[in-house]
Amino acid sequence: MMRRYVIVVEYLGIGLHGWQIQENGPSVQGLLESALAPLNGGVPVPVTGAGRTDAGVHATGQVAHLDMEREIEPEKLVAAINHHLKPAAVSVIGARLAPEGFHARFSATKRHYLYRIINRPARLALEEGRAWHIAEALDEAAMREGAKRLLGHHDFTSFRAAQCQSQSALKTLDQLDVEQRGDEIRFTVSARSFLHHQVRNMVGTLKLVGAGKWRPEDVSAALEARDRAAAGPTAPPDGLYLTHVEYQEFGF
Amino acid sequence: MMRRYVIVVEYLGIGLHGWQIQENGPSVQGLLESALAPLNGGVPVPVTGAGRTDAGVHATGQVAHLDMEREIEPEKLVAAINHHLKPAAVSVIGARLAPEGFHARFSATKRHYLYRIINRPARLALEEGRAWHIAEALDEAAMREGAKRLLGHHDFTSFRAAQCQSQSALKTLDQLDVEQRGDEIRFTVSARSFLHHQVRNMVGTLKLVGAGKWRPEDVSAALEARDRAAAGPTAPPDGLYLTHVEYQEFGF
Repeated sequence: MMRRYVIVVEYLGIGLHGWQIQENGPSVQGLLESALAPLNGGVPVPVTGAGRTDAGVHATGQVAHLDMEREIEPEKLVAAINHHLKPAAVSVIGARLAPEGFHARFSATKRHYLYRIINRPARLALEEGRAWHIAEALDEAAMREGAKRLLGHHDFTSFRAAQCQSQSALKTLDQLDVEQRGDEIRFTVSARSFLHHQVRNMVGTLKLVGAGKWRPEDVSAALEARDRAAAGPTAPPDGLYLTHVEYQEFGF
Repeated sequence: MMRRYVIVVEYLGIGLHGWQIQENGPSVQGLLESALAPLNGGVPVPVTGAGRTDAGVHATGQVAHLDMEREIEPEKLVAAINHHLKPAAVSVIGARLAPEGFHARFSATKRHYLYRIINRPARLALEEGRAWHIAEALDEAAMREGAKRLLGHHDFTSFRAAQCQSQSALKTLDQLDVEQRGDEIRFTVSARSFLHHQVRNMVGTLKLVGAGKWRPEDVSAALEARDRAAAGPTAPPDGLYLTHVEYQEFGF
């Protein structure tokens, strides 16, 4: 009998070619599938993630499922995968048996992201590759004003990558909080689902507001234009973290 | 006329051989001295730090001074050093002219360190090299009890490295807070000065208390023994950050 397991995965995006298996370099999915092979008679086990993060994007709580004939205690599954993942910057931090009909991507009811900007003149040492460094002073209050204008149900065509495969650009943005702590500005973002590059395109647009190049109301105009060219540039992947995926079936 | 400048330095200890210039690999001091050379007619400028951090130890607020004939705006000094430091994981985050008689090491009135443990079964991905990973469950309350017993004026011989060059082992420990947030346990430590490896030896000892191998009162016995062999092992450098150095002369 096939058993479906759910795993929660943490990874550092630096040096990885994103979640999805690529021919030209290591991916999180590929590393996981290879790490599972020794538990499956040497045959890689297909792994399906909740979201396909891009190259350079990090995760503290990506969720994925995998099917195996073998029955194994979830704690032992975690330890075994992690043993074979070494020394990659990918770690399975939790596992459990999936409930009936569970699918990591289609069962997800909410996805949460964090985007980090470090706003200071000096280049990054500790946070290089882990945050977007912006040297010019940003106005947090103005960015928060701009962010409010993106909340709710909208056609997000202006914030959608050209290669986005979603059938519709209509999405409901539930949360886009902007919070400054010292020289760090954190965007906490959540929705049932996102368009490709949507978070990075929203942050790249709000950065224009923070820098005083746009007014907060220009964000509404960009949204209404339904044209990618009307919004700001794509923020780099460095600052983006998939932090949490919600499912009706259980808490994580 | 020689001018003394004070700089605040952030660095990632991974891959560096510590603060002090070494023959066998890159050091923070060496990288800074080389980065200053182009501003000084090609001649490296000696840099004196507040504390000599070991290989693998990080800093968010190391302080150092340097003397140059050249008069330069502090902001320009920051930008110029950082330009030449690239791509090292070292960044100067602030600078100013030093007050009369200032010395980065001898004028310091207090040093602040952070030590991070990540306490979970799964290996580290995002925080590899940036925290001490401990898989067995630790009791935060017991560690806090043990920590209290180290506060105040004591002979810290039991927590001193054999190669320590301090004239006396008598030190006053002002702060040793233990705080858990999720799976992270943070030790916030401050004193006018520390013995070599003192913070790492205290954390390594408190870990024994957290793991239930020692009782909190055993920490007092270790302290009273005045014998390095009576205390716990040295915690790895990975979790240690020099966060802040205080001076009577100014706020940072």
